[in-house]
Amino acid sequence: MILTENLLKIDKNLHIPVYQQIANGIIAHIRQGTLSPGSALPSSRTLADGMQVHRKTIVAAYDELYAQSWIDVYPRKGIFVAKKLPDVKPRPILDLVKPHSLPNETSFNVENKTTGISLFKKSAEGNLFFNDGFPDTRIAPVELLVREYRRFANYQFTHKYLMYGPEQGSENLRNELASFLFETRGLHIGSEDILITKGVQMALYLTAQILLTKNDIVIVGEPGYSGANEVFEQAGGKLELVPVDEYGIDMDAVEAICKKKKVRLLYVIPHHHTPTTVTLSPDRRMRLLELAKNYKFAIIEDDYDFDFQYTSSPVLPLASANYYGNVIYIGSFCKTIAPGIRIGFMVAPQNFLIQVTKLRKLIDRQGEHLLEEAMANLLKNGDIGRHLKKANKLYHERRDELCRLLNEHLSDEISFKVPEGGFAIWINYINKHDTAKVAEKAAEMGLSISNGLDYYHDKNFKNHAIRLGFASLNHSELKEAVDILKKAIKKSYN
Amino acid sequence: MILTENLLKIDKNLHIPVYQQIANGIIAHIRQGTLSPGSALPSSRTLADGMQVHRKTIVAAYDELYAQSWIDVYPRKGIFVAKKLPDVKPRPILDLVKPHSLPNETSFNVENKTTGISLFKKSAEGNLFFNDGFPDTRIAPVELLVREYRRFANYQFTHKYLMYGPEQGSENLRNELASFLFETRGLHIGSEDILITKGVQMALYLTAQILLTKNDIVIVGEPGYSGANEVFEQAGGKLELVPVDEYGIDMDAVEAICKKKKVRLLYVIPHHHTPTTVTLSPDRRMRLLELAKNYKFAIIEDDYDFDFQYTSSPVLPLASANYYGNVIYIGSFCKTIAPGIRIGFMVAPQNFLIQVTKLRKLIDRQGEHLLEEAMANLLKNGDIGRHLKKANKLYHERRDELCRLLNEHLSDEISFKVPEGGFAIWINYINKHDTAKVAEKAAEMGLSISNGLDYYHDKNFKNHAIRLGFASLNHSELKEAVDILKKAIKKSYN
Repeated sequence: MILTENLLKIDKNLHIPVYQQIANGIIAHIRQGTLSPGSALPSSRTLADGMQVHRKTIVAAYDELYAQSWIDVYPRKGIFVAKKLPDVKPRPILDLVKPHSLPNETSFNVENKTTGISLFKKSAEGNLFFNDGFPDTRIAPVELLVREYRRFANYQFTHKYLMYGPEQGSENLRNELASFLFETRGLHIGSEDILITKGVQMALYLTAQILLTKNDIVIVGEPGYSGANEVFEQAGGKLELVPVDEYGIDMDAVEAICKKKKVRLLYVIPHHHTPTTVTLSPDRRMRLLELAKNYKFAIIEDDYDFDFQYTSSPVLPLASANYYGNVIYIGSFCKTIAPGIRIGFMVAPQNFLIQVTKLRKLIDRQGEHLLEEAMANLLKNGDIGRHLKKANKLYHERRDELCRLLNEHLSDEISFKVPEGGFAIWINYINKHDTAKVAEKAAEMGLSISNGLDYYHDKNFKNHAIRLGFASLNHSELKEAVDILKKAIKKSYN
Repeated sequence: MILTENLLKIDKNLHIPVYQQIANGIIAHIRQGTLSPGSALPSSRTLADGMQVHRKTIVAAYDELYAQSWIDVYPRKGIFVAKKLPDVKPRPILDLVKPHSLPNETSFNVENKTTGISLFKKSAEGNLFFNDGFPDTRIAPVELLVREYRRFANYQFTHKYLMYGPEQGSENLRNELASFLFETRGLHIGSEDILITKGVQMALYLTAQILLTKNDIVIVGEPGYSGANEVFEQAGGKLELVPVDEYGIDMDAVEAICKKKKVRLLYVIPHHHTPTTVTLSPDRRMRLLELAKNYKFAIIEDDYDFDFQYTSSPVLPLASANYYGNVIYIGSFCKTIAPGIRIGFMVAPQNFLIQVTKLRKLIDRQGEHLLEEAMANLLKNGDIGRHLKKANKLYHERRDELCRLLNEHLSDEISFKVPEGGFAIWINYINKHDTAKVAEKAAEMGLSISNGLDYYHDKNFKNHAIRLGFASLNHSELKEAVDILKKAIKKSYN
């Protein structure tokens, strides 16, 4: 086929230069086989006239094509599609607009390595939301973070934070964190014992990837945190579920498993177990450490909401009594600043920390250095401590208010235990309501609540309990939410 | 043993309250077996007198211990270490200061899953640095980023960016990026075809994890980018090395491998191949697409420095002709803003993108939402485009200046080809100098340069070439660096 002006389209509204559009169009025709190697192209004047553009535009397009070796230019002979392009067989002209939306069968085969992992679901826009237990982003100290960022615009030394930094995380942040963890949790550690991560999630992922090989046994609580269970299973781990009662995970059940099988890892949330909000009792903590020592398994201590305690003081982390080097302590500032600000940490024995740091380098090389420096400053100047005090006071009040409302309006429908800290209350539908049905009814009336289906790994278990996150609702929102919940429960009687 | 004041230490300089220090001390003694279950504890008055603290402090400590179930309190009888604590055998009293620095044999066994991955090495402080090819952080547009962050402090809707967001990345950023990639690269895509990642590194990691199973064959150039090779090998891939000449990776070698073995993946840097800076020629691009189609392998097109072109226009990405859905296109803003600002992206077929997005959720849930929103604004208002123009002009000048200096001072020692873009020049030591030796001599004189050992996967290959990153040195620094390099080469003659 001969190239004529009607084979090329120009759209002057595009930001892409006209000569580039022409060059791209010609390339597309060569690729698709409409223009074959060696075939003659019109002179720049002819094509310019036909397309009603300036001749210089066509010259620029041909220059571009020549620079990219798509055409050969022979003085006094003319311009030709390059002969040197091999293997350019004619192809079916496909829809160029969405090459990536081709049906699956024409794309390469992808093994499903992420079965069962759910993606982000938003609650209905505008609804009130009893979420899973998140802080109130309306009180997030963004202005503090921004203040730190403003400093970066001035400080002359900022540019060194812009180059690649240590994979283990900002040295300043690790130093401040070591002090913070000592003062708040009694951990006697140095900056070298810490890896800065993107939230608890990355700490879990790294640990699972390094510790687990296919079919390694991982003990988790049932009900438990599906976000962790998914990570362990994706890494090849085989979950062993142990019951959780009011004192935390059942250590007799743990020991029974240890006697029968080689256990590699146990996952525990010591404060406010997700979802049931119970705190692991001191005697079980000690027993757990003993079991870990005797049966030589590792413990992930996920203490993500240690800093949010309202009634009693927090108990010390297992990691503070980690004489045998088998506790991996992980925590987060995602609840302190905001879930969208991804800073977490891991404290672990050196040999392990070196391994996870290497893996972390492969995954994303390092964290956000500026954000880490900002966090270091906020820890150092006491802003984090002050914010935590303020937030604890507020969430304490909200917890109490929600408990009061539930007792006043729903005492014949709901039972619950007041959680000592954290962001949510675990409520049981006394009359065995279907959790999904109540959620559906509530949503119709403008309240998003959990459908109760994510708490149990055993999907056949008939669950009649859900979490009500109280921290991100103020008193009048709590009142309104409880009113709707009450109606939704009433409507869910058959 | 009976608890006496000399078993407890108080440090008033610590931020941790005195009562908590006392409680922690008593817990430590119970754990270590110095205080056995059921044994009597002194009255608060006795202990307060002995320790010279207020009685209320001891009462608070005992309250804390009681709340944590470490002690039993019997009215009119006294206070006792709780009997209910099981399994508290006496233990050797270890050094509490560094429980995490115990020798490896006492910690749990960690399989070495990250062999061969090197951790961060800094160049000597204060040295001039011909780095591997990084932008100059001194011109990084931090003030633009900070301007965007300042807006976040004001805008009322900021709080929605602080909650969990979509794993695929900010909707605004993906929309802006789709336009940007269309205008600059001719990619006809929508926001749904993009995953925002933490730099190119995460895009490589995710792709390798989802595509590769053990011993899957991955074709890479030799010499090549060790950061990518490590990712493929860690995911179980088996590397097949193909030569790289002045037109890019050798397609005959690729085809020869395809004829013998089932190839799963090919990794290519189309512009300015790392390390040799060559650009893949148009005919090889087309041949590569044909081979990928015929032999059904996937292509990772790592186009991380597309936006930095000085001499000719960039050629279009393979992904722009991706009729068969087997090109995964990845890129980055880490070179546009700064390496420490981690934003990259991946454009891929839908079925694949869903898989990698799920995996990304497991790894770190999502990116930095605020940073992503800031980037979206910078793209939208043209700041990125303007900065790229400025940076291209500057780096173009620096490339020319370094070429001029090398020609003037080192033409009998060094050969090189002027790279069309990017951040580095690939120089050959004509007289076959030992790269490590030259680096050592240069370092002694205040210039850090590559020791040349990371470019070839085959560690037995005798390499006499290194990369000189020119972008982060100004003209006088380039002059000084070349002077030192010249002396270092002279000193490296035996």
